Amino acid sequence: MSFYPASFERLTDCLRRLPGVGAKSAQRMAFWFLSLSDAEAEDFAAAIVEAKHSLRRCSVCQNLTDGETCAICASLKRDKSKICVVSDPRDVIALERSREYDGVYHVLHGVISPLRHIGPDDLTVKELLARMDGSVEEVVMATNPDAEGEATAMYLSRLIKPLGVRVTRIAYGVPVGANLEFADDATLFRAMEGRREI
Amino acid sequence: MSFYPASFERLTDCLRRLPGVGAKSAQRMAFWFLSLSDAEAEDFAAAIVEAKHSLRRCSVCQNLTDGETCAICASLKRDKSKICVVSDPRDVIALERSREYDGVYHVLHGVISPLRHIGPDDLTVKELLARMDGSVEEVVMATNPDAEGEATAMYLSRLIKPLGVRVTRIAYGVPVGANLEFADDATLFRAMEGRREI
Repeated sequence: MSFYPASFERLTDCLRRLPGVGAKSAQRMAFWFLSLSDAEAEDFAAAIVEAKHSLRRCSVCQNLTDGETCAICASLKRDKSKICVVSDPRDVIALERSREYDGVYHVLHGVISPLRHIGPDDLTVKELLARMDGSVEEVVMATNPDAEGEATAMYLSRLIKPLGVRVTRIAYGVPVGANLEFADDATLFRAMEGRREI
Repeated sequence: MSFYPASFERLTDCLRRLPGVGAKSAQRMAFWFLSLSDAEAEDFAAAIVEAKHSLRRCSVCQNLTDGETCAICASLKRDKSKICVVSDPRDVIALERSREYDGVYHVLHGVISPLRHIGPDDLTVKELLARMDGSVEEVVMATNPDAEGEATAMYLSRLIKPLGVRVTRIAYGVPVGANLEFADDATLFRAMEGRREI
């Protein structure tokens, strides 16, 4: 039995569906909404609808954009002959923050995962292959360094290499600032294997 | 510098204002919104606006309601001669769950707190006193058992007692199912002091 008014319950039910939000937090958030002014609550609601309506995938790299192409693809400063393949728009942001990469991206929107029934057709693989028009010289695989990310990188490299395009993989090693003592064996093995002259 | 489209940033900024949500969770939630269908996102937004518009305070007990009076005040089964005073609508729900109380409520919407500059005028004290029209026989103070809750209960009882109304306070003691070993001294003192014949 519910003791709250119906519209309050409906809001709480909506909030509970948010990732990482349980019953208690949803209720806390619902009360927070009630503490807002009408205008503030309407602005919040409008931000949701507005984001849903205006955001789409960049027609070139499939990254998130509110235009036809994203800011990176539209930039004249970016080297269009290098494409960095990532699984998620968040990875683009992470790599952009490092300020090391000057090429463009391709967002797969997932990784191949037989266990979760996600195959190449569920990702933007077709769109990636369509970009191999001779102008691309290098494809950098930057999927996550886990089993599914690896398998996806391997799968794509087997499709792309025959087209005469160089395929690379981001380096493995110990994270900067990390404590060697706590690094796992696989990471240390890769770090040792990939050691370079200083 | 922001790498996300403006409408995405706006949504993330809104979500960050939710209680208990930081930058990372807000971003995760914003991506979750993008994964919804347009209709689902619009329903979510509508739930916020709808809750804001339809929810108000019960004209009798100041509890949350979407009608003129709340379901408890409107019920013919409730004993209107007993009023239980709580600080928050959530406390009403908690007490209703216990199924022990058959009277009505009064929601203060806060407690007196000189440190946070909350005085009786910021609460629904005036509305509570207006209910003392001779039909009320008992007022049960169920503010939280902390310093501010205690002080608020004391303050109100000093106003209400002279009107010839019985004022009571919910019992203190060890919580059911708790481990005595971990109960604090003040609770054990109160539990011992309030012991009853079995």
